[in-house]
Amino acid sequence: MSTAQPRSRAFHSASATFPDGRDTPRAFLEACVEDLKRWEPAVAAFTWIDLEGARRAADAATARWKDGRPLSAIDGMPVGVKDTIDTDDMPTGMGSSLYDGYQPRFSAASAQALRECGAVILGKTVTTEFASSEPRGTRNPWDTARTPGGSSSGSAAAVAAGMVAGALGTQVVGSIIRPAGFCGVHGYKPSVGGINRGGSLDFLSQSCTGTLAASLADAWVLARAVADVVGGDPGSPGIGGPLLPPEPHAPRRLALLRTAGWPLLAADARAGLEVALERLRAAGVEILVPETCPELAAVEQATAEARAVTLGLNAWEWRWPLNAYLARDAAAVSQSSRDRAETGRHMTRADYQGLLERRQMARERFAALMERCDGLVSVTAPGAAPVGLETTGDPIFVVPGSFLGGPVVTLPVLTSANLPLGMQLLGAPQADETLFAHAAWIEGKVSGA
Amino acid sequence: MSTAQPRSRAFHSASATFPDGRDTPRAFLEACVEDLKRWEPAVAAFTWIDLEGARRAADAATARWKDGRPLSAIDGMPVGVKDTIDTDDMPTGMGSSLYDGYQPRFSAASAQALRECGAVILGKTVTTEFASSEPRGTRNPWDTARTPGGSSSGSAAAVAAGMVAGALGTQVVGSIIRPAGFCGVHGYKPSVGGINRGGSLDFLSQSCTGTLAASLADAWVLARAVADVVGGDPGSPGIGGPLLPPEPHAPRRLALLRTAGWPLLAADARAGLEVALERLRAAGVEILVPETCPELAAVEQATAEARAVTLGLNAWEWRWPLNAYLARDAAAVSQSSRDRAETGRHMTRADYQGLLERRQMARERFAALMERCDGLVSVTAPGAAPVGLETTGDPIFVVPGSFLGGPVVTLPVLTSANLPLGMQLLGAPQADETLFAHAAWIEGKVSGA
Repeated sequence: MSTAQPRSRAFHSASATFPDGRDTPRAFLEACVEDLKRWEPAVAAFTWIDLEGARRAADAATARWKDGRPLSAIDGMPVGVKDTIDTDDMPTGMGSSLYDGYQPRFSAASAQALRECGAVILGKTVTTEFASSEPRGTRNPWDTARTPGGSSSGSAAAVAAGMVAGALGTQVVGSIIRPAGFCGVHGYKPSVGGINRGGSLDFLSQSCTGTLAASLADAWVLARAVADVVGGDPGSPGIGGPLLPPEPHAPRRLALLRTAGWPLLAADARAGLEVALERLRAAGVEILVPETCPELAAVEQATAEARAVTLGLNAWEWRWPLNAYLARDAAAVSQSSRDRAETGRHMTRADYQGLLERRQMARERFAALMERCDGLVSVTAPGAAPVGLETTGDPIFVVPGSFLGGPVVTLPVLTSANLPLGMQLLGAPQADETLFAHAAWIEGKVSGA
Repeated sequence: MSTAQPRSRAFHSASATFPDGRDTPRAFLEACVEDLKRWEPAVAAFTWIDLEGARRAADAATARWKDGRPLSAIDGMPVGVKDTIDTDDMPTGMGSSLYDGYQPRFSAASAQALRECGAVILGKTVTTEFASSEPRGTRNPWDTARTPGGSSSGSAAAVAAGMVAGALGTQVVGSIIRPAGFCGVHGYKPSVGGINRGGSLDFLSQSCTGTLAASLADAWVLARAVADVVGGDPGSPGIGGPLLPPEPHAPRRLALLRTAGWPLLAADARAGLEVALERLRAAGVEILVPETCPELAAVEQATAEARAVTLGLNAWEWRWPLNAYLARDAAAVSQSSRDRAETGRHMTRADYQGLLERRQMARERFAALMERCDGLVSVTAPGAAPVGLETTGDPIFVVPGSFLGGPVVTLPVLTSANLPLGMQLLGAPQADETLFAHAAWIEGKVSGA
């Protein structure tokens, strides 16, 4: 266990002092580098670090802020890029030896956008194998005996320890929200299609590129800046709303999404959630429960199978490239991925179509519920990050958010076993801006619960 | 002008004789190789040829057919793969010097599926730059002074000249149906999402991977076999129906889609179309025209802007990777692509969203029309392939099919200036099997019109 507590480093609040030179992107980066030196040896968040390139980029950003001409709200922001996202100047490993020595010729859409926005890419962050199950050794900075969660393991750990202010991640099951919760940082999984996934190993039908960050504001400005440059997935409008963080706005009614994980929820986590909900009630927010809200009960019922349906969808959608990987070198593919390939091999098109219909049914129920309330509230895991690096933790609380397709944020406002746990908020598809306005208000009310 | 007429070489009919050894995949390939030697020097359909690999694959297929255990209906079929589709054993050039020396580590979904089905990949076929506008020198085998059309230029020319029985192509505007029409072969653009596009430079929201082939049966078995292995795009069920060609089935009612190109249609092409329609009427098919069918008039009106809206959608969706290409080496990017980047640069998210809504409105009108009829009939171009290699011809007749999102096939049953021209048939989204059943019946009635 580490002897000191990690502390994340918010950028958007700091950047307010860049124009008058009280702080600079270069100085901000150097503070990150101090934390990198301090934490990285124990945490192993990065697969590749480009300190020289980062310093060059930070100096350029410093000059632009000084001239009053920053390229964007994230100009000069030190960020990590999940190692499933192609970068034209750093290798991209996909968490697999099959990609050893792979140097992409062009950057993925999201990485290209970071560059165009002036962000300072400090390096590539560790991912599980193919952003799936198999962990790749990153440790939780709050307790290095524990997993940081996954698949965006390195992104969460690096942000938590202050090595970067924000990072790109991807989520198909719970790969942003779960590690953000375990590492005590903010996580944002946009509406499906919200950020252009071109050039990333991020192709599944409910997968999303999103952000992990030191503050809610950072999670927003980072994601929104990227979408501003490269849009959403082709066919989707992409994240809209202001480039700066939406103003806090009170929700009137939230639904408590217990999920199939409720019986597993640790007593201290549950108590913390109850305190948070009580504070929201005291501030005038009505909290819906399934016993008195049939639309919520219908969503609970439909999402009880979210994990099983998601795993089935993923198994089919992974037939390619998994079969291409296996054809090249089956021994380089983990047992869990081989099991997935086996599942996919036995599925039929009709099976897949049936699963798509089940997901669509759940999304329709979710839409009906969102007519009745302003958002859903839940936790990110049954408790603190588990001890050991063999798994990335139980996804039971986070898979419904991916399944339902709307935007999700997590706030680091809960604890369990004196370790971080996230409070998740789910919004209506394409209403990402509204979700952030509510989340900012909620965070103000419940922090410290 | 060439001295002999090119002749395509159908596979599915020939494969019926493989089990008893009267013909073999290897012998079939050698006949293709003869045509390759004869035509390729003048036509330039390929960017890469792997004769040795093809012969090895054909021998393996020969052994499987002899043993009565072919891997699929396309086991042993000589095919070309458009050079925007990654292949793990041949370079992939995307029609651009930016990809010089690019050797993908893994095959794209469609190419991987071809291998798993036993198809014989003879080589990579010429594409325009990035499957967009800029031609790359392939000539039309019917008249080498003329374009074969594009962007699947090499795929169309290679099939037309008998060098392969089928080929993969992609279409976002008219890149399968137009060259198939100009080269006198069958073309099939599936319903949007019909074939998994993973690993191809084929990411636009109305783009599709499809087939060009020597017969309607070949176009079906090739596409259906690929979809059987790797499915459709994630989130789409992919092409369904039988692995073997659907039985011919008479449509009751077809709508004549004149498109904005009608005033440009060459007199001989129009006369041929009228003869074809008269034969269909004589066989009991009602032909709807906009004057008496308001649903058809509404589709004509909505698709009058199909080209403009498509170009706008494409400009936005091309922001990435086009900006990454420009950042790397702007001089290596054609003027037409630079113009597209410029258009994209001046667009806003709201512009894009507005274009998406216009397309959606057209698709809803199309759905309403499909309640009234069994399909739409049109031509593939205003006339024969134009002389010169500077353009790939007018897309005015083919862009509506891409825009509406349903499946499209073209039959090589018309002529203009004694050169090939296609008769297009458009079906309802996800009803690809039905479209093929109608197309097979129609081809039987109108061949030689």
